[in-house]
Amino acid sequence: MPIAADQSADHFAFTLLASDGPARRGRIDTHRGAVQTPAFMPVGTVGTVKGMYPEQVRATGADILLGNTYHLMLRPGAERVAALGGLHDFMDWQRPILTDSGGFQVMSLAKLRKLTEHGVTFRSHIDGSAHELTPERSIEIQTLLDSDIIMQLDECIGLPAPREEMLRAMELSLRWAERSKTAFGNQPKRALFGIVQGGDDAELRARSAAGLQSIGFSGYSIGGLAVGEPQEVMFRVLSELTPELPSDRPRYLMGVGKPDDILGAIERGVDMFDCVHPTRAGRHGHAYTRMGVINLKNARHKDDPRPLDEHSPNPNCRRFSRAYLHHLVRTEEMLGAMILSQVNLHYYQELVAGARAAIEAGAFADYAAQTRTAWAAGDLPPR
Amino acid sequence: MPIAADQSADHFAFTLLASDGPARRGRIDTHRGAVQTPAFMPVGTVGTVKGMYPEQVRATGADILLGNTYHLMLRPGAERVAALGGLHDFMDWQRPILTDSGGFQVMSLAKLRKLTEHGVTFRSHIDGSAHELTPERSIEIQTLLDSDIIMQLDECIGLPAPREEMLRAMELSLRWAERSKTAFGNQPKRALFGIVQGGDDAELRARSAAGLQSIGFSGYSIGGLAVGEPQEVMFRVLSELTPELPSDRPRYLMGVGKPDDILGAIERGVDMFDCVHPTRAGRHGHAYTRMGVINLKNARHKDDPRPLDEHSPNPNCRRFSRAYLHHLVRTEEMLGAMILSQVNLHYYQELVAGARAAIEAGAFADYAAQTRTAWAAGDLPPR
Repeated sequence: MPIAADQSADHFAFTLLASDGPARRGRIDTHRGAVQTPAFMPVGTVGTVKGMYPEQVRATGADILLGNTYHLMLRPGAERVAALGGLHDFMDWQRPILTDSGGFQVMSLAKLRKLTEHGVTFRSHIDGSAHELTPERSIEIQTLLDSDIIMQLDECIGLPAPREEMLRAMELSLRWAERSKTAFGNQPKRALFGIVQGGDDAELRARSAAGLQSIGFSGYSIGGLAVGEPQEVMFRVLSELTPELPSDRPRYLMGVGKPDDILGAIERGVDMFDCVHPTRAGRHGHAYTRMGVINLKNARHKDDPRPLDEHSPNPNCRRFSRAYLHHLVRTEEMLGAMILSQVNLHYYQELVAGARAAIEAGAFADYAAQTRTAWAAGDLPPR
Repeated sequence: MPIAADQSADHFAFTLLASDGPARRGRIDTHRGAVQTPAFMPVGTVGTVKGMYPEQVRATGADILLGNTYHLMLRPGAERVAALGGLHDFMDWQRPILTDSGGFQVMSLAKLRKLTEHGVTFRSHIDGSAHELTPERSIEIQTLLDSDIIMQLDECIGLPAPREEMLRAMELSLRWAERSKTAFGNQPKRALFGIVQGGDDAELRARSAAGLQSIGFSGYSIGGLAVGEPQEVMFRVLSELTPELPSDRPRYLMGVGKPDDILGAIERGVDMFDCVHPTRAGRHGHAYTRMGVINLKNARHKDDPRPLDEHSPNPNCRRFSRAYLHHLVRTEEMLGAMILSQVNLHYYQELVAGARAAIEAGAFADYAAQTRTAWAAGDLPPR
């Protein structure tokens, strides 16, 4: 019998609570509390969700945060975080944390990368210092951070890519998955996720999924998407891949995405998401609401006394005028970035909470259609 | 009989509740709530206290904010703020607001200034647009902002300065005080404060104070200090000046200062203060506590698990390690500036709240001595 949602479990577990077509409603239990799925994980890159206190992040509805291994290993350093009591105490977030393996940021940010069978060496984009990341070291770092859900090191390539390149990276990632599993050992309070690679090739993706399952993981991440391909390609890969994944394990689409990416991925059976987009967009003056995205920099808001969305459950969408938000964005005041980051994270959490309720009610198709209709109708007409 | 502190009055009033030597404990009543004095007013330059939500500012203990007429007249513009319901609604701060006259920032920030008997013309430091500020226009702007406590336009000069220059600026400020009083008219819900000038010359200051009193104001501001002179000069001017001011009106020392400036000015009979220093210092990685100022950028904090001050009444001083704050400051994360701005404003409010309690108890001298002893003892020794 599943434990209550607000209880903490003594070991990691996933329970599938309901399905509606491929869409799934579930719950991950950890010793730091439950994660309701579909779940959106705000990104706390370097030990902080940018512009927000941890309790403000929690109040948006977030059950779990993501921490970036690459950023944290460089500053302040994994051993330092461990000496300070782990990442949860360090940033005062006592609920679950998922960490990535560091591999993606090594490929996108670091300098002088050198990839071998053993791992990857690189230089920090901050100070040029030399570092090495291997499957074993990545597990060690994530364990030092006291992460609750740990990712294997993988090789993520951009798309489009030649098939032999997708094959090579997928097979290397599988060998690293095996080494990661060995390095991880037996840690019942933590979960280790394998990462499916294989580019946009259905057969390679299926081979990756099968290979990972024969090793055996607590969850399956989907890497190598949202790396340059059109949304329809991502959706096709997901539609082909999710039937190849076990139904009793969570599925995590890494680094995705905008609200319509997330809705389409839930529709195809994905359970977990993370993305810097909501906070980054907020820092750039963009607000996500049920009416789509609103650019507060636009002069049309200059004299507009209306709030972002007077029917929103989020107080910040009701209490400040668009004119005030426009003013904060134009004067580059921190509060503008703070409010819009909160607004966007809140909307992302509303989106996945609505999906959870709709799947439970067997009404996900209606929910998705209504959500898309509201986005397409767009923002309020100018005043 | 004085109304209760949490009630709002139908008109502006000051009540002197207790004295301890020159130090005074009072209460200002306004139709937007009471202000306990000695009071520190956080600066909401352009319609936001930098890096803080209004409710976070209130939670530090602030009864009243200061808004800058110069900044707000340029962006978003006084007429726009009025059309949007006034500054309180604009920034969602429903308690009292004091505005300066704009004169000080015109002198320190604007370009191509031209000062005449009529007023001052200048160009915006942002876009070079041409503007004029006269005593009458300053009152009009502050009324459009719906300020509760309005300042006359004055001319503030730097120190040291020749006596004839201090005399000229003081006399011009007096003539502008007269015009300001006429322009202000009869507005019982608002207060108009005159501003004492006269540089570091006791006789000029006394003449300024007498001239203002013969015009008659709801409060008396002390301008032209903290403009380059040593602290001892400022303290001497205050000691000479405050006996020349009426005891039944609040006294506001403009733009001051650091904690020891404030303590010394309370000791000399000042009731109100404002300064950007606590939030600006916070953005630069400095934390004020009862142990003085702590530079979180310093590498000594890198591995320090201790909080800023485990005995502080402020949760942010207890919940985050110095190592985490150091990390946030070094990585230039917004949260670092947010936390340290809150820490500093909270400490300033603790300082004036402690002064209020000590004056009520007739123990201000002890309070001042103990506070200075703790500052002098300094921060915790390195670990």
